[in-house]
Amino acid sequence: MSFNTFGHMFRVTTFGESHGVAIGCVVDGCPPMIPLTEADIQRDLDRRRPGQSRFTTQRQEPDQVKILSGVMAHPETGVQVTTGTPIGLLIENTDQRSKDYSEIKDKFRPGHADFTYEAKYGLRDYRGGGRSSARETAMRVAAGAIARKVLPDVRVRGALVQIGPHKIDRDKWDWDEIAKNPFFCPDKDKAAFFETYLDGIRKSGSSIGAVIEVVADGVPAGLGAPIYAKLDSDLAAAMMSINAVKGVEIGAGFGAAELTGEENADEMRTGNDGTRFLSNHAGGVLGGISTGQPVVVRFAVKPTSSILQPRLTVDRQGADTEIFTKGRHDPCVGIRAVPVGEAMMACVLADHFLRDRGQVGR
Amino acid sequence: MSFNTFGHMFRVTTFGESHGVAIGCVVDGCPPMIPLTEADIQRDLDRRRPGQSRFTTQRQEPDQVKILSGVMAHPETGVQVTTGTPIGLLIENTDQRSKDYSEIKDKFRPGHADFTYEAKYGLRDYRGGGRSSARETAMRVAAGAIARKVLPDVRVRGALVQIGPHKIDRDKWDWDEIAKNPFFCPDKDKAAFFETYLDGIRKSGSSIGAVIEVVADGVPAGLGAPIYAKLDSDLAAAMMSINAVKGVEIGAGFGAAELTGEENADEMRTGNDGTRFLSNHAGGVLGGISTGQPVVVRFAVKPTSSILQPRLTVDRQGADTEIFTKGRHDPCVGIRAVPVGEAMMACVLADHFLRDRGQVGR
Amino acid sequence: MSFNTFGHMFRVTTFGESHGVAIGCVVDGCPPMIPLTEADIQRDLDRRRPGQSRFTTQRQEPDQVKILSGVMAHPETGVQVTTGTPIGLLIENTDQRSKDYSEIKDKFRPGHADFTYEAKYGLRDYRGGGRSSARETAMRVAAGAIARKVLPDVRVRGALVQIGPHKIDRDKWDWDEIAKNPFFCPDKDKAAFFETYLDGIRKSGSSIGAVIEVVADGVPAGLGAPIYAKLDSDLAAAMMSINAVKGVEIGAGFGAAELTGEENADEMRTGNDGTRFLSNHAGGVLGGISTGQPVVVRFAVKPTSSILQPRLTVDRQGADTEIFTKGRHDPCVGIRAVPVGEAMMACVLADHFLRDRGQVGR
Amino acid sequence: MSFNTFGHMFRVTTFGESHGVAIGCVVDGCPPMIPLTEADIQRDLDRRRPGQSRFTTQRQEPDQVKILSGVMAHPETGVQVTTGTPIGLLIENTDQRSKDYSEIKDKFRPGHADFTYEAKYGLRDYRGGGRSSARETAMRVAAGAIARKVLPDVRVRGALVQIGPHKIDRDKWDWDEIAKNPFFCPDKDKAAFFETYLDGIRKSGSSIGAVIEVVADGVPAGLGAPIYAKLDSDLAAAMMSINAVKGVEIGAGFGAAELTGEENADEMRTGNDGTRFLSNHAGGVLGGISTGQPVVVRFAVKPTSSILQPRLTVDRQGADTEIFTKGRHDPCVGIRAVPVGEAMMACVLADHFLRDRGQVGR
Repeated sequence: MSFNTFGHMFRVTTFGESHGVAIGCVVDGCPPMIPLTEADIQRDLDRRRPGQSRFTTQRQEPDQVKILSGVMAHPETGVQVTTGTPIGLLIENTDQRSKDYSEIKDKFRPGHADFTYEAKYGLRDYRGGGRSSARETAMRVAAGAIARKVLPDVRVRGALVQIGPHKIDRDKWDWDEIAKNPFFCPDKDKAAFFETYLDGIRKSGSSIGAVIEVVADGVPAGLGAPIYAKLDSDLAAAMMSINAVKGVEIGAGFGAAELTGEENADEMRTGNDGTRFLSNHAGGVLGGISTGQPVVVRFAVKPTSSILQPRLTVDRQGADTEIFTKGRHDPCVGIRAVPVGEAMMACVLADHFLRDRGQVGR
Repeated sequence: MSFNTFGHMFRVTTFGESHGVAIGCVVDGCPPMIPLTEADIQRDLDRRRPGQSRFTTQRQEPDQVKILSGVMAHPETGVQVTTGTPIGLLIENTDQRSKDYSEIKDKFRPGHADFTYEAKYGLRDYRGGGRSSARETAMRVAAGAIARKVLPDVRVRGALVQIGPHKIDRDKWDWDEIAKNPFFCPDKDKAAFFETYLDGIRKSGSSIGAVIEVVADGVPAGLGAPIYAKLDSDLAAAMMSINAVKGVEIGAGFGAAELTGEENADEMRTGNDGTRFLSNHAGGVLGGISTGQPVVVRFAVKPTSSILQPRLTVDRQGADTEIFTKGRHDPCVGIRAVPVGEAMMACVLADHFLRDRGQVGR
Repeated sequence: MSFNTFGHMFRVTTFGESHGVAIGCVVDGCPPMIPLTEADIQRDLDRRRPGQSRFTTQRQEPDQVKILSGVMAHPETGVQVTTGTPIGLLIENTDQRSKDYSEIKDKFRPGHADFTYEAKYGLRDYRGGGRSSARETAMRVAAGAIARKVLPDVRVRGALVQIGPHKIDRDKWDWDEIAKNPFFCPDKDKAAFFETYLDGIRKSGSSIGAVIEVVADGVPAGLGAPIYAKLDSDLAAAMMSINAVKGVEIGAGFGAAELTGEENADEMRTGNDGTRFLSNHAGGVLGGISTGQPVVVRFAVKPTSSILQPRLTVDRQGADTEIFTKGRHDPCVGIRAVPVGEAMMACVLADHFLRDRGQVGR
Repeated sequence: MSFNTFGHMFRVTTFGESHGVAIGCVVDGCPPMIPLTEADIQRDLDRRRPGQSRFTTQRQEPDQVKILSGVMAHPETGVQVTTGTPIGLLIENTDQRSKDYSEIKDKFRPGHADFTYEAKYGLRDYRGGGRSSARETAMRVAAGAIARKVLPDVRVRGALVQIGPHKIDRDKWDWDEIAKNPFFCPDKDKAAFFETYLDGIRKSGSSIGAVIEVVADGVPAGLGAPIYAKLDSDLAAAMMSINAVKGVEIGAGFGAAELTGEENADEMRTGNDGTRFLSNHAGGVLGGISTGQPVVVRFAVKPTSSILQPRLTVDRQGADTEIFTKGRHDPCVGIRAVPVGEAMMACVLADHFLRDRGQVGR
């Protein structure tokens, strides 16, 4: 089963609750001899870290990752490398501030997993969302950092392309802008707009949804496997497993429903260095297998459910009541989903790469 | 691995090429003592069968399923029931008409899996698409028919809700209309329109995309498992694995990106028979676990890539050329995806049901 | 789950009952471009086939295998090769002779799976043992024939080394003798003895156990993966899954318990072509990984439970009774387990080979 | 894949090297609402702990386990219970004494995994055996402690039944003796003999093999699943995955090869409380499914490979040399394998129990 594990050859198992002792993960199947330090992982974690702007939760967590196993100094070079054994990673929870949970302990927050965890397990860890908290995604980002090292020639980048009804202008897409605003937004002008827009959302105690796009360049043709391990099928599962994601699309996505066969089919020509496609409605995947074009995935993130506006709900005793959620929350959880989406893309690609090429022996 | 298998407790493994000897599947993990005959499966297969209208491929296949194993007459009642052992299913390919494949043998059809299979495996079965043909989905429908019997209190129904840019009117939704038109369309008026519209598409040698919605009623709260076996994550993988699907969404889906937290969160009240929700933006899934509301999934199907319009392409030798595809093809493959989407929903739900309740021993 | 599937990268899923319509299997993950015909598989099946001597069941089954999918004529060479898609195999059951099953329908045969299947599933296919019949192993042999082609440089051979208390003389081991007697016995003299000995067993309506040894030469060092996919762990599971097997050992096996550290540790010297070991107590596996020496596995097969001698038992209604089993049965099921053990070894090695080297892309 | 994971519904993933920062594991799939404290786990760990007598390694490790996730105080009772989410466990390595590894850094110890890890991965963690160290089994024992709580009515007990050629007297079997000697030996007299015998082995710088028997009482009939998830097949894999194990047998095991059908088949009679068997050659498993009798597994452990006696070997540069291993090692690793064998039995049974009954919903 795969309750808390994803991947087959590049396998990631995560554990830990938002306000427990620690969160952690085990990355199994990583090939040996890959240089890997905590700094390599920390770099990606820092991009996801909360508290970096007023547009993400103010929870302050240094999120300092520790590698517990699976690496050693190479006996000849002294460089720390992977050994082929499982890589244990741990982040201790330092900001478990003592807090009054009486409000949410007995009430189900609409839009949250409170009700469903209780329905399934008979109890739930109400402290900060427990296992259902987005805090779990820190370990995905950590695993993704390792996945990137498995695929040195592949570049995975994500961008926020929509907040609420406001989409970026694709003609203004500039990857360099991503690092310059707190939204991972590639459209400079729209980023400026988002700043004002989200301030309004935040001040009103509300929240708003978003759409993220993740693009992988340098993916060789041939990754993915029919029929039930299609690259796009695995990407869909990976993205949909991220907290608050409600939709996933590849290439033209839902737009493909409106296209004719002539419009949708990406024509091919022979280029200097092999076949190239004249368009990429396919999003880099045909028949579940990569085409060699950029792999393009978009996913929709619903608005944060924890809002200051009171909502109708019921309590554990079955009585009607109201709830509103105080505390540190993102007005737009979609923002921090950008590095998480990148990480999932990297992990899925690494997994398929290793299925085709094997863990060792190349 | 799961190249050609899906599910964990209710496991389906399919095999077979479009123009080979036969297609088949093995359904493993089905609980014992469930009444099951070939007629039960045939009923669903007949809904998917091609050649039933001019809007689907004219390939004539009786698609007669045979149960090879896993059932026997109950020693006391004489009723044929499952035994808990794997159920082998087979459909012989009868319409493998001898045909001239010279055109597609050496050319890659844009939008098809031709290029990617060749890139991955070094060869491909060019006869009718081989393994990448939608013919494989017949076995999904067969497996889905068994899955439905595992979940007697759950009703899974699918509908075509959009062709090209034309969406149905949701106010006119009538499930009874589904069986009355060749499109599985729940909006009577739109169905009439589609008839004319698709005739035009067909006559012009073109094709068009579509959107399908699948709804499961009667799903108990509590199905699904965090974090990487979320019900919606598994549904996304299942739907995205269907041929030509480019997008999947749950509940409000991509629309959730445009909602505020107040709008999106489904409020709760206490009803006579337990908790009920005042809306269903969640599509019946919160935190990856079913809420007890209808589970609602939509997926986008791209237009058929086999069209009569010539398109630029390259051949296996790397030279630029053109191609157009003669033969029997659907102007809108989305139509026949309706029963396939239903089957995938049924299989995913049965899988999760058995994870929670076990295969035997209840 | 893996109820009826084994392997990860070279995956085999079997189905079918002894007296049903057919038995079959799906081999998933086989690399493309491997020449494969039905004759390649039939050759191995013929070695396992019953009815070839009076020492195995007289059930007459031609066991003619059909390849249903996963192969095609190579477009250039015309040679039939694998395509990388799942290989469906089918053997129709032709000797389902109408027979009186009233005796075993309601009584549990001691030593058989009758009682446990009924305990688990509430019913069982009493016709010829149903799913628990050794007939299922025909599909393992078929899959093993394909596995051998994945590993062209590895030679997997099995031998019967003990029947009842009578062990072969290892000094007289001659692989060429295997094909010359009906016991797969490498010791010519002991084979002659077994002929007389088993005639006695057979005539008395009794049965007897056996020990099989399977040896794989040419296995490269490095196959297997710590900790829970150790090569010997997977071999143990594979052999123990064969009908009637009660024990498995690697190399020195249970004998290792009696050795000192000095005796057991295989010393190493540098040879012309790399490291060699001066002994092979390890049976070719250290720390779960192959050493490059022959991989040596032995397994014990219990005596056939279907005997002419009456035994005490109970019936389905819970009453005490007696039973004896008429019909065509092996006096020593261990004999036919030899090609089955070879097949399982080949499948496990192919699986690990593909984990390390990948399915495609080498 | 399952490199470092075992089980399907009760899944255990371990990580960590002998002399790294820590070892740990993730137990996934444990049902909710089971009372669980660190003390519950520590109790079993303490039984396995080294340094408790002169017959096991003198490495001093308190082996203090920490639960990192997956439990919380029940909101009503305050009792700490499982939540259904993954249970992260950690043991920090405290006795990583700085040590001279120059001897083994470049030489392969015969009988060790040194050579094979290097062959597979190109490097190995030479410090204390790294991942191949028996230290990893501490996490199995921890997981086993949780598995026992999943199966409150099953009692799993192990015993050492042979050291070198010396077998216990089965007529003197007394489970109460197990806790009274440092060998987990159920035969009081033989335990006294082992004390003298092992002192001799230890003083001579040698080591010796052993055989362990694990018995599970109270296992309900019906656990296990044909064909490739047979209870005995999973037990074989589980036991063979333990360090230094070279053979596994169920019930009569290799002895079954010497029995006739009449001798081997366990006859049945109707007792007051249902069917009972008059003997247990089957070891509680028929057709891969539990019979309701005690499940009996034996496994052979080879002698410790780290011995003071010099042995021929080669070094990493390919030159012939000699090696002998100084340091703290068990004269008989089989002793400490007893609680490990129990843990593996408990985990396999819990896994099969959850497959049949489900993780939640009973």
